[in-house]
Amino acid sequence: MLDYKLLEALVAVIDQGGFERGARHLGLTQSAVSQRIKLLEARLGQPVLVRSPRLAPTLLGQRLLNHAQQVRLLESDLLDQVPALGSGERRLRLAINADSLATWWPEAIGRFSERYRVLFELVVVDQEVALKRMRDGDVAGCICDSPRPVQGARSHALGSMRYRALASPAFMARHFPDGVTPGALRQAPAIVFGPDDRLQHRYLAMHGVEPPFPHHLCPSSEGFVGLALAGLGYGMVPERQAERELHEGRLQEIDPGPHLADGSLVDLAPGYVIDVPLYWHHWRQGGEVLDALTDHLLRIVDAWLMPLPAT
Amino acid sequence: MLDYKLLEALVAVIDQGGFERGARHLGLTQSAVSQRIKLLEARLGQPVLVRSPRLAPTLLGQRLLNHAQQVRLLESDLLDQVPALGSGERRLRLAINADSLATWWPEAIGRFSERYRVLFELVVVDQEVALKRMRDGDVAGCICDSPRPVQGARSHALGSMRYRALASPAFMARHFPDGVTPGALRQAPAIVFGPDDRLQHRYLAMHGVEPPFPHHLCPSSEGFVGLALAGLGYGMVPERQAERELHEGRLQEIDPGPHLADGSLVDLAPGYVIDVPLYWHHWRQGGEVLDALTDHLLRIVDAWLMPLPAT
Repeated sequence: MLDYKLLEALVAVIDQGGFERGARHLGLTQSAVSQRIKLLEARLGQPVLVRSPRLAPTLLGQRLLNHAQQVRLLESDLLDQVPALGSGERRLRLAINADSLATWWPEAIGRFSERYRVLFELVVVDQEVALKRMRDGDVAGCICDSPRPVQGARSHALGSMRYRALASPAFMARHFPDGVTPGALRQAPAIVFGPDDRLQHRYLAMHGVEPPFPHHLCPSSEGFVGLALAGLGYGMVPERQAERELHEGRLQEIDPGPHLADGSLVDLAPGYVIDVPLYWHHWRQGGEVLDALTDHLLRIVDAWLMPLPAT
Repeated sequence: MLDYKLLEALVAVIDQGGFERGARHLGLTQSAVSQRIKLLEARLGQPVLVRSPRLAPTLLGQRLLNHAQQVRLLESDLLDQVPALGSGERRLRLAINADSLATWWPEAIGRFSERYRVLFELVVVDQEVALKRMRDGDVAGCICDSPRPVQGARSHALGSMRYRALASPAFMARHFPDGVTPGALRQAPAIVFGPDDRLQHRYLAMHGVEPPFPHHLCPSSEGFVGLALAGLGYGMVPERQAERELHEGRLQEIDPGPHLADGSLVDLAPGYVIDVPLYWHHWRQGGEVLDALTDHLLRIVDAWLMPLPAT
């Protein structure tokens, strides 16, 4: 078998973001951790880490991390069956898109965590990066807008998030005094989450407006809504769906969110919406907890997301 | 003078996160952008980019980006004086800590942006990384907890954010049936923002509890509060201060936030708080808009942050 002491050093250095922190995490000296990684590299004849421009695993290192995480998940199943082996603490590392994390995800997994004692390590990345993280083995599951699973994984349709373009009434008065015309849309600053966020581009295309367009960049869901509330720009904000009354099985009204309800944000052009499909991807051999989480998500997600159109 | 066409290609590739997007942003073909960067590297005799493990500037490339951003800021001042030169669009790239962005920052700069037409590019990084970004010239200003400016920059005390440990009533009943004792704190899962977030560690130290302790990782302010609301763990949540009635000059009561007010979150141990000082750092030669933003922040920040103790 592999020498897992060496692998553990690599995992700690990458997870903790440095040799000093990795060593502290393991309760070792920094030089002990360094030596373990050097020994690992000597045995493999290849580097597992690059130090610059920033600390990152090489392709080989990434494969080792992948393997180590799979082993940890399998170990957590074993610990569950043989509690005497350890503390039974289970960790799941998942990549979740920022808007899901800011809206339905916490409540959805809240119920799960009541039954399964699992600690979540959540990574927030753009959806296209999420699949890369799956492929690299950095996360055991992810939410993204593509149905195509990477090798060794499965995907399941969850539903879609509906986005509307929202802005403050003051912003509307300043930038759209004559209505939401293509000319006004070309001038009014949008808010864009990050370089991978194309929602505002798609919204403008629906109105016949091509890029470039003025925009702020704000990679935080709460900051994004905050900038809209403060009147700096308009942006595509996800609608929250009210939770179903699960006991009575009735679907409640769609909740427009507190800001639309109290008028602090208004819809630029009601009827113009963008529905983004979301899929849950997970490793096939991820162990029982991951399988149970998958079942849980599929059972409850209709309460928060809109059903995807049949294909 | 430098050939700014070449620098512009480098800026676009890094800002947009790739050659294809950088080219689209500039309205050029990908091969034209590639050639410009090759020409830049040929003239300098050194690479300005590394392609793997991910696209990133070299140290030399970073210096060029730094310079290019300073030039852009100076240009925006010039454009302000000579509007005929261009569109007058001004961009400020700033690193803001997630909790500020999720709480007081949008409203604070909302008023500023009413007067100055500036587009913000916000970068969310941990506070210790923010200063590195300043040093690298990646951002023109940042908020961090250290008063020490990097070379070529100035810092100003803004005030402090007060954090309290909050959890849902259900979590309290499950994990602290006999009160918030050190023994119970050792077992109850915390929520930690990321590897650089030591607030939960400091809180536990106040109660005499040493790491390790079980914790979820959730690098999103809204997701963080969401996990607490869903009963997955407890975590240090920033208090929002009510905005001052600026017209009347009266300081309102401190706003405990909606979740404490409606009882969906409760304070683990009232009286145990952590105050985190925040400082505004900015380039000395950042141009008029940056200077005006600095003045604005210092004038209004007392409405959102608590005054720092006199030193």
